[in-house]
Amino acid sequence: MTVPAWQLNCPVKFDESSERITLAHGEGARLTRRLIDELICPRFRSLQRGALPDAAHIDTTRRRMAVTTDSFVVSPLFFPGGDIGSLAVHGTVNDLAVSGAVPKWLTLSLILEEGLPISILIRVLDSVARAAAECSVEVVAGDTKVVPRGTADGMFLNTTGIGELIDPVPPGPQTIQPGDVVLISGPIGRHGIAVLCAREELAFDPPPRSDSASLIDVVAMLRNSAGTKLRAVRDATRGGVSAVLHEWAAACGHSFQLTELQLPVSSDVRGASELLGLDPLHIASEGVLVAAIASEASEAAVAGLRSLPMCAHAASVGTVGTSQLSPVTIQRTLGQPQPVDEPTGAPLPRIC
Amino acid sequence: MTVPAWQLNCPVKFDESSERITLAHGEGARLTRRLIDELICPRFRSLQRGALPDAAHIDTTRRRMAVTTDSFVVSPLFFPGGDIGSLAVHGTVNDLAVSGAVPKWLTLSLILEEGLPISILIRVLDSVARAAAECSVEVVAGDTKVVPRGTADGMFLNTTGIGELIDPVPPGPQTIQPGDVVLISGPIGRHGIAVLCAREELAFDPPPRSDSASLIDVVAMLRNSAGTKLRAVRDATRGGVSAVLHEWAAACGHSFQLTELQLPVSSDVRGASELLGLDPLHIASEGVLVAAIASEASEAAVAGLRSLPMCAHAASVGTVGTSQLSPVTIQRTLGQPQPVDEPTGAPLPRIC
Repeated sequence: MTVPAWQLNCPVKFDESSERITLAHGEGARLTRRLIDELICPRFRSLQRGALPDAAHIDTTRRRMAVTTDSFVVSPLFFPGGDIGSLAVHGTVNDLAVSGAVPKWLTLSLILEEGLPISILIRVLDSVARAAAECSVEVVAGDTKVVPRGTADGMFLNTTGIGELIDPVPPGPQTIQPGDVVLISGPIGRHGIAVLCAREELAFDPPPRSDSASLIDVVAMLRNSAGTKLRAVRDATRGGVSAVLHEWAAACGHSFQLTELQLPVSSDVRGASELLGLDPLHIASEGVLVAAIASEASEAAVAGLRSLPMCAHAASVGTVGTSQLSPVTIQRTLGQPQPVDEPTGAPLPRIC
Repeated sequence: MTVPAWQLNCPVKFDESSERITLAHGEGARLTRRLIDELICPRFRSLQRGALPDAAHIDTTRRRMAVTTDSFVVSPLFFPGGDIGSLAVHGTVNDLAVSGAVPKWLTLSLILEEGLPISILIRVLDSVARAAAECSVEVVAGDTKVVPRGTADGMFLNTTGIGELIDPVPPGPQTIQPGDVVLISGPIGRHGIAVLCAREELAFDPPPRSDSASLIDVVAMLRNSAGTKLRAVRDATRGGVSAVLHEWAAACGHSFQLTELQLPVSSDVRGASELLGLDPLHIASEGVLVAAIASEASEAAVAGLRSLPMCAHAASVGTVGTSQLSPVTIQRTLGQPQPVDEPTGAPLPRIC
């Protein structure tokens, strides 16, 4: 077959050093196609099958699946330990993992502000691709929109994840019972503090690093060691450990007693929190999970977690009880247990 | 079981007439929970099972599935014939339908600008719920982010859709052959013109209405009447019919010859296009599809489509050939066939 002349067009390559996003990159026509063909598809193996379809076709091996969606609006786009791209992949993959699924497929939707340097977009796409490969998930479908200068802040991402559920799926917070133990897989609050310090240009040296990471292996270790003794698992993102435990308290009707001395908190997070008047219990992590587990399985679970490099500081941090005082209390070093508030304000906006 | 005192809190209800979105509604803590519990979950049956999980669990009946994602940044949020909520549902459901799937599940992710009136959010959520119910899709998972005033334009939505593929799936544009016929299911360009007129406050009377609608029944009719003679189906959204045919030309290596007199264009779209210097072939529809079909099946397909009220003006509008002139040409009322450009500019930004 002779190739028609109009297929021989050789489009000018993107100039990564100076080119910027224009409204026309979002209009579904030639410039959109160029953006997709030159910048997006080459980074994702699963998108290299030629013309992008309206919908990706996927073949599942199991009929019970998990679905989650997250939009990411973090500011700044890049921070020590990660960026909006890796964060989007980790956040979505972790939601699937803690719900009992093996993450398999991701969609990636971009909202770009007119004027965004192409070099920034490329860095973020590379980061998405790297994180997705590390997590063994395929980016199967995407979308790109461009909005006029001033109507979005650089870029927003949405990732939606689909995974296959593996039995036994942890039954969830409504099954938590008095006497159960609460585990935390690592030092809390690192992501929130890292983003805050980057955004406000607080000159800590070294700058605090986000813990943004996949929890796939951590959840697998916990499920292997605890089996059906594992009641609920959750990544401690927006609202921190406090928000997770308040939600669980509402679901199970019991209360949670934490012991401050057992909480893993890194020295930079502790220092920055004290300076800024924040409580690490309210600050987001992006690579730390909270688990509720029957007490007889908790010791082995902590030992299992500690065998993973990212969970060297895993600890049992509290127990489930029937206190009428507050859904969550903490025993600080001195005095009576104190209530841990569910934060209502916005101490840390736009951390994910 | 005695209900602990902290579960008896009766939160103040949203004041729909004056309350606005604050940053705290996006922080994952108490105000986020209130937004989700009071405004979002009650509208979606599938989200009423108590505490929202990180990921929804779905049970498929088939192992071949389709996935699609779209972000919506349309301005204004409300326009004659629809709004950002119904548009998001229709756009996503239509992408699944044209890819050969029965749409089943949706995720809904909101990016809200601080200061957005709660009443606007409620109208949009009601519209999403209504459209989803009409399309028999379940909203199974969601996410809410809030960004500071001035960093997003009111609200952006992302919907990701999952559907089950039903055989025989149309094989796609790479199977299009010379001699095939191109069908269009209804008058083109209505959505783009309606949004443009609403945004620019062009005083047409009556104002042009968007055609935003589900194409589920239209695709089903086409598949029933044409079976394996149906090569490819696509909804003519951003970039219009022209963008679809240019993509198909790139995929199959053949070219498309349209006949202007056969193109269904409503009088308001024709009038507004002439005034504004636009070509309806480049303007988005949100309830019209383009199909490529073997010629022997085209007559029955058009007749089948015309039996549906929304497709009364369905027509065969062109044929597939081997022209070397241009991927898409049009025979206007006088003279030689003329090339139809793939639009490169941005005549109509933010129409979806």
